[in-house]
Amino acid sequence: MGTKPQQQLQRAAEGGEPGLFADWQPSWRNPAASGNSRAARAGQDEPIPLLEEQLAVLQREHNELRQAIFAAAQAQRRLCAPRQARRGRFEIASEIFPVRHLSGDFNQVLDLGATTGLAVGDIAGKGLTAGLWLAHLAGLVRTHLGSSLDLSEAVTAINEELWKMQPEAPMVALFLARLDQECGELIYCNAGQSPAVVLRAEGCVEFLEVGGPMLGGISGASFPSGRVVLGRGDALISYSDGIVECRNDQGEEFGAERLVAASQNAGHSSAAHMLYSLLGAAQDFAGTHAREDDLTLMVARRLE
Amino acid sequence: MGTKPQQQLQRAAEGGEPGLFADWQPSWRNPAASGNSRAARAGQDEPIPLLEEQLAVLQREHNELRQAIFAAAQAQRRLCAPRQARRGRFEIASEIFPVRHLSGDFNQVLDLGATTGLAVGDIAGKGLTAGLWLAHLAGLVRTHLGSSLDLSEAVTAINEELWKMQPEAPMVALFLARLDQECGELIYCNAGQSPAVVLRAEGCVEFLEVGGPMLGGISGASFPSGRVVLGRGDALISYSDGIVECRNDQGEEFGAERLVAASQNAGHSSAAHMLYSLLGAAQDFAGTHAREDDLTLMVARRLE
Repeated sequence: MGTKPQQQLQRAAEGGEPGLFADWQPSWRNPAASGNSRAARAGQDEPIPLLEEQLAVLQREHNELRQAIFAAAQAQRRLCAPRQARRGRFEIASEIFPVRHLSGDFNQVLDLGATTGLAVGDIAGKGLTAGLWLAHLAGLVRTHLGSSLDLSEAVTAINEELWKMQPEAPMVALFLARLDQECGELIYCNAGQSPAVVLRAEGCVEFLEVGGPMLGGISGASFPSGRVVLGRGDALISYSDGIVECRNDQGEEFGAERLVAASQNAGHSSAAHMLYSLLGAAQDFAGTHAREDDLTLMVARRLE
Repeated sequence: MGTKPQQQLQRAAEGGEPGLFADWQPSWRNPAASGNSRAARAGQDEPIPLLEEQLAVLQREHNELRQAIFAAAQAQRRLCAPRQARRGRFEIASEIFPVRHLSGDFNQVLDLGATTGLAVGDIAGKGLTAGLWLAHLAGLVRTHLGSSLDLSEAVTAINEELWKMQPEAPMVALFLARLDQECGELIYCNAGQSPAVVLRAEGCVEFLEVGGPMLGGISGASFPSGRVVLGRGDALISYSDGIVECRNDQGEEFGAERLVAASQNAGHSSAAHMLYSLLGAAQDFAGTHAREDDLTLMVARRLE
């Protein structure tokens, strides 16, 4: 016993041939094999019913696959909840748009007692393979932001954890911050992410650039933290590359300048309104040009 | 600017409608829309070319989706490497067979200095949504087995980490062990996994049942560890439910008794041979009955 199945299984396990997925091979290649089919009865004299049946079978299988991906995408969205929140004097809104399949971008709003943790991350790569790492990153951020009062230490620990999983783990860009929701102090670290923007109530902007390289690439890298205080009416806008790298049909990028201009235009609106205005501006700019990257955005605005 | 796109984006972001996936909507519904197509030129007088083209477009899109899933599955496999290893006096072989899409089962062989970490896990649920958590579990096992000399502490810590991510995180069954590859001492904890089997060189078996509940469900649960010593020729066989729950067309389960009998039949063969013999026996038993669950198996045999 075992010799023939053993060889089959070993070959299948190598993954280089269809055996690995034997149980979900598409059956459209031979719908007649399913037995009681119209096409099987029709034979070669009726090519239209045969084609119709092939199409129906493939449509069904394709839809099943898409539904599985949709369910996984919804599970990802739950990990990145809440989308809109009120924390102390702040209103926070965030959103993610995966370009296809699953998202490699993520965001989190975490309750840490007197402060609120904010994370906007971008896992290198796109689609399913990047998406496989989202739960792990969400877990690492939660663990280390929750257990360390020092933001630099938390980012350093996440970097080392990812480093330990090289070469399998991807590189990750992360804006991580701890916000005092009453006094408005924001301690942050920008690890390879596009600089977050602080839009002051009177309209001027600051870029939050203190931090280190992308996570997971260099063991022992240092991640100093920066500090800024958000006053009444000020807003923090943090985002992944996807939004500033949106291109139009002329190949131009949306860019940080247009993002700043759009946020200034959105003026003194709510966090959610500002978020959707910025996404809308990027989408208007890109026009019919297809997006190339996942896109995530977070806005935290101090109301009082 | 902002108002119309804002509403569109907000609706799309809810995820309940196709807008979320606008960029990868299947185009087979209307291949003529792609412009320079045979079917568009053919019009309604030529239904066969139209159907053929619909089929070709859908086949292409389906294949792209399957390739993305295949790439993600390969990334998962790399996380569960090595498949076959020699550690001190032990030969270790492990394998995973996802029933569809991605695997929710995982295994790991980790080098921890003088000892080797062994993990065989089963994430509740199947397919993509369970698969999203595999990298996180692999990371948790690596971190906590690496940082704690006490196995109970490591399992307790993993349980608490998963608990903190409720209700999003799934329940996880895990057999975790630390093997002294020279003296053969195995400290283990079985958290809701099917009891691992120790097959002694002379043919009798022991079941490793010390442990606790599945991980992620109960904060504060305790996870005592058990101890067993593997002598020359002894083998450890650890596996997920999938293998013992393989059913044949009569609805019977393969079960632990058949697994034990198959391992006794495999006798004094190599770890890899025993592993594929067991998988082959389960496959022979199931016959044409489709598998219903992911399946993973690990064999560690002491050679000298």
